[in-house]
Amino acid sequence: MIKVGIVGGTGYTGVELLRLLAMHPHVEVAAITSRSEAGMKVSDMYPNLRGHYDTLAFSEPDAKQLGCLDAVFFATPHGVAHALAGELLDQGTRVIDLSADFRLRDADEWSHWYGQPHGAPALLGEAVYGLPEMHREQIKKARLVAVPGCYPTAVQLGYLPLLEAGLVDAGRLIADCKSGVTGAGRGAKVGSLLAEASESMKAYGASGHRHLPEIRQGLTDIQAGAVSLTFVPHLTPMIRGIHATLYSTLNAAPGDLQALFERRYAGEPCVDVMPAGSHPETRSVKGTNTCRIAVHRPENSDTIVVLSVIDNLVKGASGQAVQNLNLMFGFDEATGLNAPAVMP
Amino acid sequence: MIKVGIVGGTGYTGVELLRLLAMHPHVEVAAITSRSEAGMKVSDMYPNLRGHYDTLAFSEPDAKQLGCLDAVFFATPHGVAHALAGELLDQGTRVIDLSADFRLRDADEWSHWYGQPHGAPALLGEAVYGLPEMHREQIKKARLVAVPGCYPTAVQLGYLPLLEAGLVDAGRLIADCKSGVTGAGRGAKVGSLLAEASESMKAYGASGHRHLPEIRQGLTDIQAGAVSLTFVPHLTPMIRGIHATLYSTLNAAPGDLQALFERRYAGEPCVDVMPAGSHPETRSVKGTNTCRIAVHRPENSDTIVVLSVIDNLVKGASGQAVQNLNLMFGFDEATGLNAPAVMP
Amino acid sequence: MIKVGIVGGTGYTGVELLRLLAMHPHVEVAAITSRSEAGMKVSDMYPNLRGHYDTLAFSEPDAKQLGCLDAVFFATPHGVAHALAGELLDQGTRVIDLSADFRLRDADEWSHWYGQPHGAPALLGEAVYGLPEMHREQIKKARLVAVPGCYPTAVQLGYLPLLEAGLVDAGRLIADCKSGVTGAGRGAKVGSLLAEASESMKAYGASGHRHLPEIRQGLTDIQAGAVSLTFVPHLTPMIRGIHATLYSTLNAAPGDLQALFERRYAGEPCVDVMPAGSHPETRSVKGTNTCRIAVHRPENSDTIVVLSVIDNLVKGASGQAVQNLNLMFGFDEATGLNAPAVMP
Amino acid sequence: MIKVGIVGGTGYTGVELLRLLAMHPHVEVAAITSRSEAGMKVSDMYPNLRGHYDTLAFSEPDAKQLGCLDAVFFATPHGVAHALAGELLDQGTRVIDLSADFRLRDADEWSHWYGQPHGAPALLGEAVYGLPEMHREQIKKARLVAVPGCYPTAVQLGYLPLLEAGLVDAGRLIADCKSGVTGAGRGAKVGSLLAEASESMKAYGASGHRHLPEIRQGLTDIQAGAVSLTFVPHLTPMIRGIHATLYSTLNAAPGDLQALFERRYAGEPCVDVMPAGSHPETRSVKGTNTCRIAVHRPENSDTIVVLSVIDNLVKGASGQAVQNLNLMFGFDEATGLNAPAVMP
Repeated sequence: MIKVGIVGGTGYTGVELLRLLAMHPHVEVAAITSRSEAGMKVSDMYPNLRGHYDTLAFSEPDAKQLGCLDAVFFATPHGVAHALAGELLDQGTRVIDLSADFRLRDADEWSHWYGQPHGAPALLGEAVYGLPEMHREQIKKARLVAVPGCYPTAVQLGYLPLLEAGLVDAGRLIADCKSGVTGAGRGAKVGSLLAEASESMKAYGASGHRHLPEIRQGLTDIQAGAVSLTFVPHLTPMIRGIHATLYSTLNAAPGDLQALFERRYAGEPCVDVMPAGSHPETRSVKGTNTCRIAVHRPENSDTIVVLSVIDNLVKGASGQAVQNLNLMFGFDEATGLNAPAVMP
Repeated sequence: MIKVGIVGGTGYTGVELLRLLAMHPHVEVAAITSRSEAGMKVSDMYPNLRGHYDTLAFSEPDAKQLGCLDAVFFATPHGVAHALAGELLDQGTRVIDLSADFRLRDADEWSHWYGQPHGAPALLGEAVYGLPEMHREQIKKARLVAVPGCYPTAVQLGYLPLLEAGLVDAGRLIADCKSGVTGAGRGAKVGSLLAEASESMKAYGASGHRHLPEIRQGLTDIQAGAVSLTFVPHLTPMIRGIHATLYSTLNAAPGDLQALFERRYAGEPCVDVMPAGSHPETRSVKGTNTCRIAVHRPENSDTIVVLSVIDNLVKGASGQAVQNLNLMFGFDEATGLNAPAVMP
Repeated sequence: MIKVGIVGGTGYTGVELLRLLAMHPHVEVAAITSRSEAGMKVSDMYPNLRGHYDTLAFSEPDAKQLGCLDAVFFATPHGVAHALAGELLDQGTRVIDLSADFRLRDADEWSHWYGQPHGAPALLGEAVYGLPEMHREQIKKARLVAVPGCYPTAVQLGYLPLLEAGLVDAGRLIADCKSGVTGAGRGAKVGSLLAEASESMKAYGASGHRHLPEIRQGLTDIQAGAVSLTFVPHLTPMIRGIHATLYSTLNAAPGDLQALFERRYAGEPCVDVMPAGSHPETRSVKGTNTCRIAVHRPENSDTIVVLSVIDNLVKGASGQAVQNLNLMFGFDEATGLNAPAVMP
Repeated sequence: MIKVGIVGGTGYTGVELLRLLAMHPHVEVAAITSRSEAGMKVSDMYPNLRGHYDTLAFSEPDAKQLGCLDAVFFATPHGVAHALAGELLDQGTRVIDLSADFRLRDADEWSHWYGQPHGAPALLGEAVYGLPEMHREQIKKARLVAVPGCYPTAVQLGYLPLLEAGLVDAGRLIADCKSGVTGAGRGAKVGSLLAEASESMKAYGASGHRHLPEIRQGLTDIQAGAVSLTFVPHLTPMIRGIHATLYSTLNAAPGDLQALFERRYAGEPCVDVMPAGSHPETRSVKGTNTCRIAVHRPENSDTIVVLSVIDNLVKGASGQAVQNLNLMFGFDEATGLNAPAVMP
């Protein structure tokens, strides 16, 4: 049994960590912090947790106390982990950061997209990008893991087999992504009201989104070469889920694409390659840490279409964070992540 | 480890049994039947079960084979369990019926509401009404359990403390109930299409609904006297959930109503009395076997308002069926029913 | 052609006035005010109005300018109309107030429910309660009209025929009401987010809601005697619509209830009594100024159930305001209010 | 005043024609046919039409009677118009076909995609493809108009300015389209149930969809040359709306793209080019005949992204049919199509 803490636990990734860890046999949540809600019981804010965390309450963040724990999750806006992570690492506590703070290796690029100086450039060297399907061995030894963003997870897992095999033109990638509204967080914004966001569909950030440099960095790693990507996210009238529709152009004879994907992900506990011809639904992964993928080649043309779905709050955030924790502490990788999706 | 079967597994209560039993440590699903889908793998119909039941396929119902199992669930339209239950009981298999076939004790009343003769009146004497909060001891010894309907579960649990205490006029009960669309089953009906049922609210069956006699029978048992109930169900634009708003009129000084409810349900693993002043949300119980209840007395008048929420497919069907199974086989009552609701 | 203004036009009732008045042949919107958005074009905030109001922009409220118009609508939070209405009336401008400021005749009761002193008690004497089905003749001559609230409209129109006929016990009324989320306005609140309010149902204000005294006052007027009402509103996962389910107890032989309702509303342009046995759907009135009503007597008991549906933003607010305007200025009562609901 | 008929009026495009024609000052609906519902009043099936068509009832289709009308709309499955259109044209009745029967000019290609022989190849020569923004003058003189499909309308209007200007590579077009569920019609299919289709997103027909040849034919006309298009439709959890996200690759210096689009659609009553940087929402066109378009060039790359939204049942079907009717009979093109969208 290890003891963990959660910094910034009032948002959607925080409560999702609590939900998942309630089913984890080897983890105890010893602290959860929130400046705004200090003193409130978590089950008063989230009634679904009644009966699971009846005494746990939000507390003021305290680096000394957190530094006594085995691991600390950051479920915070960007910038917060920059300030605290180093202090925790110094005390021997491992850090799993769900924010964007350590995802980009280049501090200048981070500054460009986030509009402020990077607060902990010295830690960038040891931060591991927490996509287990690419970096499993580094994760096992990591002290500091940067959990990938939701769109980057769905997009990278979808393109991975094609780029590794060198089958497609990395200069012509198009990722058309659709996300449920929890991707925008728990902040009270007019645009996220049910009255505004339901019964409608729209693109946003068509001219540039903060997940673009993260995806580009990841695909470049796979590709070992320059990548050109157009990424258009869309707001979809549902609570959870990302559906990434990924277009690429063949630059070689493709062989058996279905076999390629199945081979690449054989043994992966959290990626499910669907049968040929499938169209995965986001609801089939709701609440789970699974990424479901199907690959199509319409009319035998040179365009490949990959369909990749995840739950943005699980495989796209808190579930992947737990998967990283499992790897870091030597537990079975899918511990606590086994429940099937509630469907319908 | 016991072996169970599911008859009629293609509907929503069938797949929900599979989902719940996938997390049950002491149960193996050895057979699932469907005349229309025999031969199909369950994970091909329900992709959320991929990775959980990769070999299980629907089969033709066969009483001999089912009779070798420890227990069989019926997730069938009414009438089917009448025909098969006796044969299974004779072979020593216990039967947990999710349909309406054995809920009403009076075969004539059953015939009146279901428009056909009762097919197994000889079994009515031993059938136990599977509401554990009322009939726990009989359930433990039962061979044949009739799992309560969804509306009846929410309504009876809400009225139970008031009627047991004799505090309200049983001649003036009003149950205004709101259900998600899965209550109508998986049949392809125009009225259940997203295009028809979303962004709208309507009552149905205002002049009489098949759950009315079942609720009336249950409340009469509690009350030990005649009950007059007006029951109006409403179709609500959501997938799952029942919200019962229950009105009654005080006929005695109420004392501390909050304490009354808390005392009645102390120790109940599947009923959660919310703090005074609460308004339970259906989403807080989605996917779980919990009934959340709050009691109000507006303006200190003589009208009591009880708010009672469940997931119609779990505590209102498949979860309650598993709760009954646990009692019948001596497992901890909440085994396999512990996961918190996915929220948001 | 008359010229009108709208004070506080950025909320949902404001934009709905603009939508309806765009189809009104005798009205020009000459001014719309908003302190926070002054200078912004209305079609930039509400793209559905592009092509309809391409030059109209929000302006700072200015009593002089507004006082030059024929009529001014207040689509403001409570308290604002108190401060401005008198000044406009003095200049000869008629006032149609969609807020709660002039709905209650008793200034003290207003203060009790709204937590502040009434700001214009001298005007209460002449304010007319703008429910045309009850007060048509006074509205025609009114200078100041208080447009009824959304719940009060649905509830009063449903009970009206029964209470006028003296058929039911006014001491035992129960109004169980379900509203879409626009009833909570356009304010950015966490509880109104799609992520929080969809796929769920809950009651709120079960122990007291500001619409209760307004309904009580209206029903008392009809009844000419004391009324006891239990009113429980519920938040429903849809954008628009109110479904009121109204319970009452017969205290006399009811005769032909269907005929009673049809007779009472014969000739009413905005009330539609559905055929016997109907269950009106809120979507059938979405975007329209119609109230659809059905009356049931379950099992021929002494409980009457009336189902009454409106669009909370139209017959429950802006449409009813236009209906009042039509009456005040001698237009045909339903001018501009004729378009059928978009369905599905 | 002209008299029109609707063949096959029980589906979603049929009721939408009724809704739109109720607001048309120059059109009377004299007949509406349905074999399955003959004798039923339309307002009994569609309560939103109560008060608008109180006597109109569905009748058996009768070519003689229909042949006395000025125009007949076909809102039927494919194949029906093949059989009847010629007979009506012979009697001097103009035909506006909302089905796919006359959209493809090549009878063999039609047979390939629809799996049956073309039933009226002799009429293909005179059928006009009813996209007013491309074929306005021919429509004015047409006897037989084929109303474009929903996806083809959104896609063609989005690509039109780029292809006409020869700015993009017609060999690399990608149309990622998202549709509400009414696109699947009113048929009772399990996949269209609220319980199945809400709270989820999925692609379908990724390997080939019947709208693909129609789009290809239209784009080829614009382009005057071969076109290669990848088209992936997605099912979105909303009732109405299509959001087309259109990718293309520049093959020339683009100049001012915003000005190009504004110039091309200047004066078009049913196309609205949004300001630069906009992201149109489907709800902003719900219930209207407007197509809203925005054009983006992310990071000044050579990829152009066009966002094009319509209501699939209006500009994508029944509204465009009325727009064609207006042109054919010399009415103002937007007659009856002016109401703003209901929003929120």
